[in-house]
Amino acid sequence: MKIDVVLTPKLLPDSDCEGSLCSVIDVLRATTTIVVALANGATAIYPCCDATEARKRAESTGDKDILLAGEEEGLRIPGFHLGNSPFEYLSSDSIDGKTIYFATTNGTPTMQKTHSCSGTPIYIASLANLPAVASTMVKATIAGSPAGIILVCSGRYGTPSAEDLYCAGLLVGKIIEKLLHTGISSELGDGALIATGFADGDETKALKVLSESVHGRYLQSIGFNADLEFASRIGRYNIVPVFDGNRISL
Amino acid sequence: MKIDVVLTPKLLPDSDCEGSLCSVIDVLRATTTIVVALANGATAIYPCCDATEARKRAESTGDKDILLAGEEEGLRIPGFHLGNSPFEYLSSDSIDGKTIYFATTNGTPTMQKTHSCSGTPIYIASLANLPAVASTMVKATIAGSPAGIILVCSGRYGTPSAEDLYCAGLLVGKIIEKLLHTGISSELGDGALIATGFADGDETKALKVLSESVHGRYLQSIGFNADLEFASRIGRYNIVPVFDGNRISL
Repeated sequence: MKIDVVLTPKLLPDSDCEGSLCSVIDVLRATTTIVVALANGATAIYPCCDATEARKRAESTGDKDILLAGEEEGLRIPGFHLGNSPFEYLSSDSIDGKTIYFATTNGTPTMQKTHSCSGTPIYIASLANLPAVASTMVKATIAGSPAGIILVCSGRYGTPSAEDLYCAGLLVGKIIEKLLHTGISSELGDGALIATGFADGDETKALKVLSESVHGRYLQSIGFNADLEFASRIGRYNIVPVFDGNRISL
Repeated sequence: MKIDVVLTPKLLPDSDCEGSLCSVIDVLRATTTIVVALANGATAIYPCCDATEARKRAESTGDKDILLAGEEEGLRIPGFHLGNSPFEYLSSDSIDGKTIYFATTNGTPTMQKTHSCSGTPIYIASLANLPAVASTMVKATIAGSPAGIILVCSGRYGTPSAEDLYCAGLLVGKIIEKLLHTGISSELGDGALIATGFADGDETKALKVLSESVHGRYLQSIGFNADLEFASRIGRYNIVPVFDGNRISL
């Protein structure tokens, strides 16, 4: 099975995604937060490219059980109910049964772009649900014989992020291992070679990678130190959100 | 000192290169071959974007001591004197005193693009001259107080290459170490974090990285196995070619 990692959505058109099984990663913080929101009872999440799109789509529904959520420069968008910190989505009281229109700088546009390229459902991956994503993607590979497996890192303003590549590297490692157990060997593209070499299968250095990355340092500088610790925990949630091109749900 | 690695020239405009000390890497094979050509007496090398540009520029000189060189899809361009294998440049008999117009798929366009972005001389780096490049860039940093140090990987058709990132990672490691000896600490961007994490300071795995990479596998498939072994040797040449925006020379 061909496996590759796309280091930033800016490099997506160069990768032959069509018909591949795809996953999008934004460890700090969109995909981590989406996992937490759905684990705490959110009905669905609509990923939007920006605040304007989120407002327009939310208004057009007429639905009362909606929340506007997201960030600009890491901070909650003015007038929105929630920001992009996973801690805001931990309480079922405020999240349960809600539909969320979610706009972030890197993660949500990457989900839209990846779906446009692949035409297939997109698995939402973070360190928080990494083992579950690996299992689900391997099952889907066996069931569906896709063209390949492509993990797309959201990065930061179009450039690669160390924390997303680290997550991708661990995920590729687990996928290779599980495929091999079923007798399927893997052929890695350079993005996947780089990711697995960088992560080196070492789950103990997650917090170090997140803390040293440019975005990790930025989030710490604006007071989100606890988010890094939270986002660095591997496998806390056993769910796999899926984006069908319109909404993300379980 | 700010240090970063740009994983493919496609990501160059996102990086603030202007006024930075820049290096271009294309281990397989343009920068390796340029080092060999200049070590064996070539007077200068003019990097061109493609065969047409190389022919036009060569014709316009009227110079007799010129050679047309380069590759398309890894193979010598029809009608050209030389291809892109370092072995073709090992004999001083054919190279000494010659001016070479050199067109390759990834390396030479990356040199042109990087110079356009930085406006500064570009250091040509490969595993073959890695220690010399590290020393030269550190001396230039101390002498010139540049905005930062940026290593640009040529990659392959716009996507990242494992072998270039590996070279960049070793080079960043050496630069950090040398700067620290002079009391200058380094601040790494995510590209540099990824490169150093991937290379892991391990010079013994060069041939493995080159052999497993997509371009390494391709070159082996068209008969250039020996080029990989040659290009994987670290520090065989103690020279640093410099591209001034027009030509590369020592």
